[in-house]
Amino acid sequence: MQFQVSNDLIEQVRHLIKTEGDKELREMLSEIHFADVAEVLSELNLTEATYLVKLLESEKTSEALMELEEDFRERILENLSAKEIAEELEEMDTDDAADVVAELPDQLAEEVIAEIEDEKHAEDIKELLSYGEDTAGGLMAKELVRVKETWTIAGCVREMRRQAKNVTRVHSIYVVDKEDKLKGRLSLKDLLTAPAKAHISDVYIPKVDYVNVDTEGEEVARVMQKYDLEAIPVVDHEGVLVGRVTIDDIVDFIKDEAEKDYQLAAGISQDVEADDSVWELTRARLPWLVLGLFGGLGSVFIMESFDVALAKYKELFFFTPLIAAMAGNVGVQSSAIIVQGLANDNVKGSLLNRLIKEIGLSLISGVTLGVLVILFGLLDGMDLLFSFTIAISMLCVIIVAALIGTFVPIILDKRGIDPAIATGPFITTSNDIFGIFLFFYIAKLILGF
Amino acid sequence: MQFQVSNDLIEQVRHLIKTEGDKELREMLSEIHFADVAEVLSELNLTEATYLVKLLESEKTSEALMELEEDFRERILENLSAKEIAEELEEMDTDDAADVVAELPDQLAEEVIAEIEDEKHAEDIKELLSYGEDTAGGLMAKELVRVKETWTIAGCVREMRRQAKNVTRVHSIYVVDKEDKLKGRLSLKDLLTAPAKAHISDVYIPKVDYVNVDTEGEEVARVMQKYDLEAIPVVDHEGVLVGRVTIDDIVDFIKDEAEKDYQLAAGISQDVEADDSVWELTRARLPWLVLGLFGGLGSVFIMESFDVALAKYKELFFFTPLIAAMAGNVGVQSSAIIVQGLANDNVKGSLLNRLIKEIGLSLISGVTLGVLVILFGLLDGMDLLFSFTIAISMLCVIIVAALIGTFVPIILDKRGIDPAIATGPFITTSNDIFGIFLFFYIAKLILGF
Repeated sequence: MQFQVSNDLIEQVRHLIKTEGDKELREMLSEIHFADVAEVLSELNLTEATYLVKLLESEKTSEALMELEEDFRERILENLSAKEIAEELEEMDTDDAADVVAELPDQLAEEVIAEIEDEKHAEDIKELLSYGEDTAGGLMAKELVRVKETWTIAGCVREMRRQAKNVTRVHSIYVVDKEDKLKGRLSLKDLLTAPAKAHISDVYIPKVDYVNVDTEGEEVARVMQKYDLEAIPVVDHEGVLVGRVTIDDIVDFIKDEAEKDYQLAAGISQDVEADDSVWELTRARLPWLVLGLFGGLGSVFIMESFDVALAKYKELFFFTPLIAAMAGNVGVQSSAIIVQGLANDNVKGSLLNRLIKEIGLSLISGVTLGVLVILFGLLDGMDLLFSFTIAISMLCVIIVAALIGTFVPIILDKRGIDPAIATGPFITTSNDIFGIFLFFYIAKLILGF
Repeated sequence: MQFQVSNDLIEQVRHLIKTEGDKELREMLSEIHFADVAEVLSELNLTEATYLVKLLESEKTSEALMELEEDFRERILENLSAKEIAEELEEMDTDDAADVVAELPDQLAEEVIAEIEDEKHAEDIKELLSYGEDTAGGLMAKELVRVKETWTIAGCVREMRRQAKNVTRVHSIYVVDKEDKLKGRLSLKDLLTAPAKAHISDVYIPKVDYVNVDTEGEEVARVMQKYDLEAIPVVDHEGVLVGRVTIDDIVDFIKDEAEKDYQLAAGISQDVEADDSVWELTRARLPWLVLGLFGGLGSVFIMESFDVALAKYKELFFFTPLIAAMAGNVGVQSSAIIVQGLANDNVKGSLLNRLIKEIGLSLISGVTLGVLVILFGLLDGMDLLFSFTIAISMLCVIIVAALIGTFVPIILDKRGIDPAIATGPFITTSNDIFGIFLFFYIAKLILGF
C-alpha cells in the first residue's frame, strides 16, 4: 500500500497538538484517508484524540470515529457536547449513527437526537434504534436508491443523480410501486444499457432477494453468503422497502460471531480484547475458572471415595491428570467439530449414524493410545494387567467423552440454545469429572479393590 | 426468503433422474437460483448429482458447482470428461476456474485447459495458477472493467457496455495509461454525473488503493476491511493492472482463517468438517491426543518422583486434576486473547506492561480461587496448613500458566510462526506438566516431605 501511519507522523501530530498548531494539523491530515486518521487517533491519548476530533471537519472524523474501538470512541464522545456529537452524526450513514447513539446514556442520546438539524436523518436514526440490535432492522441503513416502476430510464437517471448524493455506494437500484412496496431491482449495468425512453417496468428484474426487518442477523449473513449478495433490501411486514444491509456490515458480523465462538471455546465469557482493563478481563475469565475449580473439587471427592485403592494401586492416582486431559481434549475436539458444523449447516444424517461414527472414531483413537500406554507400561516396568486396566478404562473414557462432546451441543442446538457455550471449559470440566469417575469405576471392576 | 429447497423437491428430482425425465428436470430447475441448485446437488448421491450436472446447462451448473463442498465437487468432476469439465470452466469467472483446475490431477488439468475454446480465458486461468494460493494473485479474478485515461466519457460508456458483459458485477472502473499501468479509478456514480464529452483524465480519482500480486491474502483482507473496499485492483511488479480481488472472496478467506484458528485451539490439525470420513477426522485429531498422552505420561513420572509424600499427604494427589485443569484453563484463556489480539493487530504497549498486567490478572483470579479452596478445605475437614499449601501452589501455577499462555504466542509471532498453534492442546499439555511439577515442588517446600 502507498500510505503507512509512521511513528514520525504520530510524533508530529502530538507535537502540533501540544503547541496548538491547528492550521498545520488540518493541512497535514486533510489528505489522508479516514481509516488512517482512525489509526492516528488510536495511537493518541484521550485528551489528544478529543482535541483532534474537535479540530477536524466532521466529514472526516465521523468516519474515523466509526473505525475506532468502541470503548475509545465512547470515551471521546463523553468529552464532546450534545451539539458536537450531533454534528458527527449528521455526516454518518444512518446505520452507523444509530450504533453510536445506542452507545450513549439515554438522557444524552435524546439531547443529541434533538440537536440533529436534518430532521429526516434524525427520524431515520430513531427508527433504526427501534429494531433489535442483531436483526436486519438493526443492521440496515436507510440510505438507498429507490425508483418507481412507472418512471422512464431517463427520469430514473435524473432521480438517481439526486439520490446518489446521499448514498456512499450504489449497489442496486430498488424498484418500488406507488405504495413503496418492493417490486424488484435494477442493476447499474441494466441502466447503462437500456434505451432512455424505456419504462422501468419493462426492464427491471422482478426477482429480488430480501429479508424482513426482524430477520436474525445470522440468517441475513447466511442468505447474503449463499446468494453472493453485496447488499440486500429489507422490507417491513407490509412489504414496504425500509432499508438495506450491505456486505461490509455483515463481514463485521461474521467476524464477531467467529470471535465470540472462539472466545467461548477458550473460556472467556464476554467480548474482551487483549488491551481491556484487568477488571474487564477478570470478569470475563473468572467465572469459567470457578467452574473449573468446582470440577476439580468434584474429582477430589471421587478420588477420596476410591482411596482404598491407594494401598495396592497408587499408580492409578498418578494417571488421573492423563485421564482428565484425554477426556478434555477428546471432548473439545468433538464439540468444536459439531459446533462448527452446526454453524455452517453441514451436520447432516441421522443421530444414529453420528453415534456410530463417533464411536468408530473414538475406538480408533482409543485403541491407538491404549497400545502406547501398554508400551509405556512395559518400559516403565508396570504390571501388565495394570497397564491393560489403564488402557481399557482410558478407551471407555475417550468414547464417553466423544459422545458427550458431540451430543451436548446437538441437544442444546435443538433446544434453541447457542451450542458454542458447550465448548471449552464447560466440556472439559464435565468430562474431567465423568472421566475420572469412569476410570476408577472400571479399574475397580477389573482389579477388584 | 421466498424460495426453500424442500424435501418434496428433492424427492421429485430423484424420481425424475431415475425415470430419465430430462425435459421435466430441465424445466423444473431452470427457474431456480444456482445456489439452490447447489443445495439440491448436495442432497443427492454422486451418481444422481453427476447425472444432473451433465444434463443442465453449464451456465447454471458451473456456478452451482462452486457452491458445493470441495470434496463432493471433486468427485463429481472425476465422472466428467475433460471436454465436459472445460465447458463448465468456460462459464466460470477466471478465479473460480483456476481454483477448480488446481484441484484436478496434473495430467487432467492440462487436458482440460487444452479443451477450453476461449483462448484468452485459458491463458488467464494459466496465469492465475502461477500465483501462490493465498496471495492476491491467487485470490484475484481477471474480469474487470478498464478504461484508458485518454478516452471520453461517451467512449468509455460504449467500451464499458462491451466489457461489462464478461464482468458479473461492476464495482469500480479502473483507469490505466497506454502501458496498462494503473492510474486511478472511476466510480459508476462519477460516470453517471460527468458530461459525455469530458475526458477520463479530467474526472478520474487518481488515489486508488491497490495490492501487489504477491501480497499475502491476510494483508489483502486487512486492507479491504480497513478501507471498507468491495474490490481492490491488483498490479504486477511493473504496476500493470492484472486483476482484482472482490470482497466475497475475502469473506471466505476471513471465515476460513477464523475456522482454522478455532480448530487449532480445539486440537484439530487439519481443515475437517463434521461430515468428513472417520479416517480424515482421526488424522486431524489423533496427533494432538498423542501429544496429550505424552503430557499425561510426563505427569505420571512427576508424581512417581514425589511418591514419598503419599504416606502423609495422599490428598495432594487427589488435587492433581484440579491443578491441571486450572493450569490448562488459564493458559488457554491467556493464549486465546493474545492470539486474537495479534490477529486483529491490537496487542500494543511494551512486553513489561503486558507482564505486569498478566501477573495482576492472575493474582486476582488466583487469590479468589485460593479463598474458595480454603473454604472447601474447612468444609471437608482438611488441615488448615494443607489447605493453604494447595491455595498457594495453585496461585503460583495460575501465574505461571498465564505467563506461558501469553508469551509463547507472542514469541512465536515474533519469529514468524502462526501463534494459533500455541493454543488448545499445546498450551494445556505443557501447562499440565509445568503445573503439576510446580504444585508438588511448592507443596514440598511448605510441607517439607
